Amino acid sequence: MAQEVQQDNNDHLVKSEDPEHPANLIPDLCRKFYNWGWVTGTGGGTSIRSGGHIYIAPSGVQKELMQPHNIFVLEFPTPKYPPSDRKYIRKPLALKPSACTPLFLAAFERGAGCCIHTHSQWAVLVTLLVEREKGPEGCFEISNIEQIKGIPKGPGKGMLGFFDTLKIPIIDNTAFEEDLTGSLEKAMDAYPDTYAVLVRRHGIYVWGDNVAKAKTQCESLDYLFQLAVEMHKLGIPWVK
Amino acid sequence: MAQEVQQDNNDHLVKSEDPEHPANLIPDLCRKFYNWGWVTGTGGGTSIRSGGHIYIAPSGVQKELMQPHNIFVLEFPTPKYPPSDRKYIRKPLALKPSACTPLFLAAFERGAGCCIHTHSQWAVLVTLLVEREKGPEGCFEISNIEQIKGIPKGPGKGMLGFFDTLKIPIIDNTAFEEDLTGSLEKAMDAYPDTYAVLVRRHGIYVWGDNVAKAKTQCESLDYLFQLAVEMHKLGIPWVK
Amino acid sequence: MAQEVQQDNNDHLVKSEDPEHPANLIPDLCRKFYNWGWVTGTGGGTSIRSGGHIYIAPSGVQKELMQPHNIFVLEFPTPKYPPSDRKYIRKPLALKPSACTPLFLAAFERGAGCCIHTHSQWAVLVTLLVEREKGPEGCFEISNIEQIKGIPKGPGKGMLGFFDTLKIPIIDNTAFEEDLTGSLEKAMDAYPDTYAVLVRRHGIYVWGDNVAKAKTQCESLDYLFQLAVEMHKLGIPWVK
Amino acid sequence: MAQEVQQDNNDHLVKSEDPEHPANLIPDLCRKFYNWGWVTGTGGGTSIRSGGHIYIAPSGVQKELMQPHNIFVLEFPTPKYPPSDRKYIRKPLALKPSACTPLFLAAFERGAGCCIHTHSQWAVLVTLLVEREKGPEGCFEISNIEQIKGIPKGPGKGMLGFFDTLKIPIIDNTAFEEDLTGSLEKAMDAYPDTYAVLVRRHGIYVWGDNVAKAKTQCESLDYLFQLAVEMHKLGIPWVK
Repeated sequence: MAQEVQQDNNDHLVKSEDPEHPANLIPDLCRKFYNWGWVTGTGGGTSIRSGGHIYIAPSGVQKELMQPHNIFVLEFPTPKYPPSDRKYIRKPLALKPSACTPLFLAAFERGAGCCIHTHSQWAVLVTLLVEREKGPEGCFEISNIEQIKGIPKGPGKGMLGFFDTLKIPIIDNTAFEEDLTGSLEKAMDAYPDTYAVLVRRHGIYVWGDNVAKAKTQCESLDYLFQLAVEMHKLGIPWVK
Repeated sequence: MAQEVQQDNNDHLVKSEDPEHPANLIPDLCRKFYNWGWVTGTGGGTSIRSGGHIYIAPSGVQKELMQPHNIFVLEFPTPKYPPSDRKYIRKPLALKPSACTPLFLAAFERGAGCCIHTHSQWAVLVTLLVEREKGPEGCFEISNIEQIKGIPKGPGKGMLGFFDTLKIPIIDNTAFEEDLTGSLEKAMDAYPDTYAVLVRRHGIYVWGDNVAKAKTQCESLDYLFQLAVEMHKLGIPWVK
Repeated sequence: MAQEVQQDNNDHLVKSEDPEHPANLIPDLCRKFYNWGWVTGTGGGTSIRSGGHIYIAPSGVQKELMQPHNIFVLEFPTPKYPPSDRKYIRKPLALKPSACTPLFLAAFERGAGCCIHTHSQWAVLVTLLVEREKGPEGCFEISNIEQIKGIPKGPGKGMLGFFDTLKIPIIDNTAFEEDLTGSLEKAMDAYPDTYAVLVRRHGIYVWGDNVAKAKTQCESLDYLFQLAVEMHKLGIPWVK
Repeated sequence: MAQEVQQDNNDHLVKSEDPEHPANLIPDLCRKFYNWGWVTGTGGGTSIRSGGHIYIAPSGVQKELMQPHNIFVLEFPTPKYPPSDRKYIRKPLALKPSACTPLFLAAFERGAGCCIHTHSQWAVLVTLLVEREKGPEGCFEISNIEQIKGIPKGPGKGMLGFFDTLKIPIIDNTAFEEDLTGSLEKAMDAYPDTYAVLVRRHGIYVWGDNVAKAKTQCESLDYLFQLAVEMHKLGIPWVK
C-alpha cells in the first residue's frame, strides 16, 4: 500500500500539456479504436515506449473514457516474468495492470516504439477462415491489394510492394493472456520481418517503430482483414 | 396533476454537476447506444439503481437528445405491479414512464446496479438463427472466443474463461413490453448465472453490478452476436 | 431577380436562437442523416411545416454543411403545380428549390408536420428484393419484429402491435423527382394508413405528425429494412 | 536544404481564417474521408486547384490529423515529369510530396478544380467483381438507381438520368502510384465524359469542377459501389 502511494507520487510522468506525450496519446488512440469497434467491452490495449519508460493502458477500463492519470508506467528494460518483478514506477491506485504487458514488452525488446492489441472482428474472422482452409499451422496471406503497401517488408527493408504477399502468422489462443507470450515470441522469431501476430479467435497484436507507424499499420491490416472477409463472401481468392 | 407538480419539485434528484451522477450518465449512455444503432426510433431503455433510488430513461424520447430533466426517479424497493402502485418520486410532466420498468426492477431485485435494454439487430438476428437451428427452447451458445471473457461466470464467480461456453437464454416476445416480466424472471431463475436475457425478434436485456459492468457486458455481448452472425454467414459453427 | 432580392429580406424567418426552430432543426437533422449514409452526395431532403409556413432544405447542397440561411420558406397551402406558382416567401439567392417540394406538399396536405426523404441503401435493397420476389405490384411486408411498434397503425389509430404486419407501398421511380408526385399520392390514397412510401431503386419518403415522429419513424423503418436485408441473406422470411 | 527553408517562407499560402481556403478544406475533407474508412493507414489523397496554385495533401500523414501547414503548394501548370521539375512553391520540411501528384495534375489539366483519391473497399470490391465477370477490359456499369443522378453525363452535359447507364473505366494497378499516370490518362481519353477512374485492387480517382462537386461525386460513386456489392450478394444484376 505504502509502495503504491509512493508510486502515485510519480503523477508528473503522466501530466503534460503536450498532445504528443504518451499519457495523452494513449487515451486518444483508445477513443479512436473504440469507435472502430476494436476495443469495446474493455477489450484490447495500447502501450508506448518513450525515453526509457513504458506507458500502458490499464486493464478493465472503458477505453473511450480513459484518462492520462489511468496510465501505468514501467521502467524499460524490465523483467517480463514474474509479474511481481516488473519495475512499475507509476501504478494508479484501484486499477490493475494490463494482462497484455509481457506481450507488449516482447515487442519493445525487438525495438518497437508502440504496440497495439485489438479484438477486431475482422481479425478474428480471418483467423477462423484460415484455420478452416489451411489448418492450425496456416498463416494469413494476401497479395495484389494496394493497401499492402502500408505494411513494412521488415525492419530496415522499406515497405511491401503491391505484388508482394503479406504474411501474418497466427498463434493459438490461451486461457490467460500472459500465457500467449511464449508463442508470440516464437512467432516473432519464425517471422522476423513481421510487425503483427494474429491470435486465433481473439484478435491481433500490431507494433511499429513509433506511434504513427503502429497505428497506421494497425489500420492497414484491419482494412485488409475486412476486405479479405468480403472477398471470401464473394468467392474471390486472397492471393492472386 | 397536483401530484405530478409536486413530483417535479424533486428536480434536485436529477441536477448534479457530477458526470457520474445517474441523471447525467443515462443521457450519456443513450447517446452512445444511439450511435451504435441500438436504440434508434426511441427503442430500448436504460436504468440505474443508486442510493435507494431507481433512475429510468423515459418512454418515447429520442435517445440521443435525452436530458437529465427527462429522467424518472422511483423509490427502491417498489412494487412492480400494478404500475399505479410504483413509488415515483419524480415524474417529468408530459413524459410517459418506460414500459421496461418492471423488467429493470426484476434485475434490480436480483442485485443489479444498472440494466440496459437494446434493440440491437445482431441480438435480433441471433434469436432468429437459434430459433431456426434449435427451436423455440434453444439458447444462444458460443465458445472459444476471447471476448467471452468480458462476461461474468455468475454472481461472485469471476469471469468466464476462453474455453467456457457462454449461454444466454432467449424468451418469446409478447405484445406488451411489461408482459415480458414473468418470462424474464423465469429465465433469470432457470439461468441464475446469466447477466442477460435475449428477447426473440426484439432485442436484449443486460444488467450488471454497476454502470460500467452493465455497459461493457452489453458491448461484449453485442460484439459476440455480430461475430456470430458473420460466422454463420461464413459457415463457421459457434461452439467449437 | 428583384423578386429574389426582396425574398431575401425575409431572413428573419430562418433566424432564431431556438434550437427547435425549423430553420435550425433541418440542418441538425440533415447532419444526422448524413452520418447514417442516407443523404450523401446531396441526395435526399427534409421539410417541416410550422405556423402556415413550409421550411425546405435546398437542392444540391452538401447535407452535413447546411446552414439555416440555406432554407427555403413557402406559404402553406400553396399550389403543387406548376412550380412557378408556388408561393415562396424566402428563396436563398444562388440556391435551387428542392425537386422534392411537391412530394413534401402532398404529405403536408394530408396533415403531416414533417416529411423526410432519404436514399437509404437498405430501403433501395428491399425494393429490389420485393420486385424480384413479388413483382412490380408488391409492397414491403414484415411482422413479428419489436421495432414495428415504432410505426403508427394509421392516423389516430395508435401504434402497430408486434403481431401486426407492417406494409409499406412501393412506387416506380421516374426520370424526374417531381413526376413521382402523382404515384406517391395514389399510393397515399391506396394505403391511407401509411406514413411512408418506398420508391423503387431510389429511396423512401417518410412523414409524421411532427418532427420527432417523422424522424423516429424514419429510423424505425430503416432499422426494419436493414434487418430485412440481413434476414434475407440468412434465409429467414420477413413475415412469420 | 536552403531551397526548402525558402519554400517554407511561403507559409502565408496555407494560412487563412477562411474555412473555404484550400489549405483548410483539405484537412476537413480528409477527416471526413477517414471516418468513412476511405483513407485509413495513410492511404488516399486530396488536391485542390485554386488561383494558379495546386494544394496537395502530403504523403504518409495520418489523414484525420492533417493540418493546414502540412499542405504542399505547386504552381499550375507545372510539369508532371520528372518529379524534380515540378514547381513547388511550398514544401513542408520533413514531409514527402504525394505520389498521387501526377495523377491529380492529369485531372487538373482536363479542367478539374479538385481531385480525390480513396482506397474505398467498395471500390476495390467492384473492381474484383468486374474482373471476374467481364475480364480485365471490363468497366463498372450500373443503371436505374436514383443516385446515378449525382454523377455528370460529361463536361457541360448536365447530370446523368435515372435510366442512363453509368460507366466507370477500370485500369490495372502498378507497382508505383506515379506509374498509373499513363493509363489514367488513356482512360480519360477513352472515356472523355468520365469524372472518375477505378484502379483495380487499389481504389478510385474522382474529380470535379470544384471541391463540392468532386466530394459529392465521390460520395455518390461510393454509395453506388456499396449498393452494387450488396446487390451482387443478393443476386440482383447491376444493369436492368
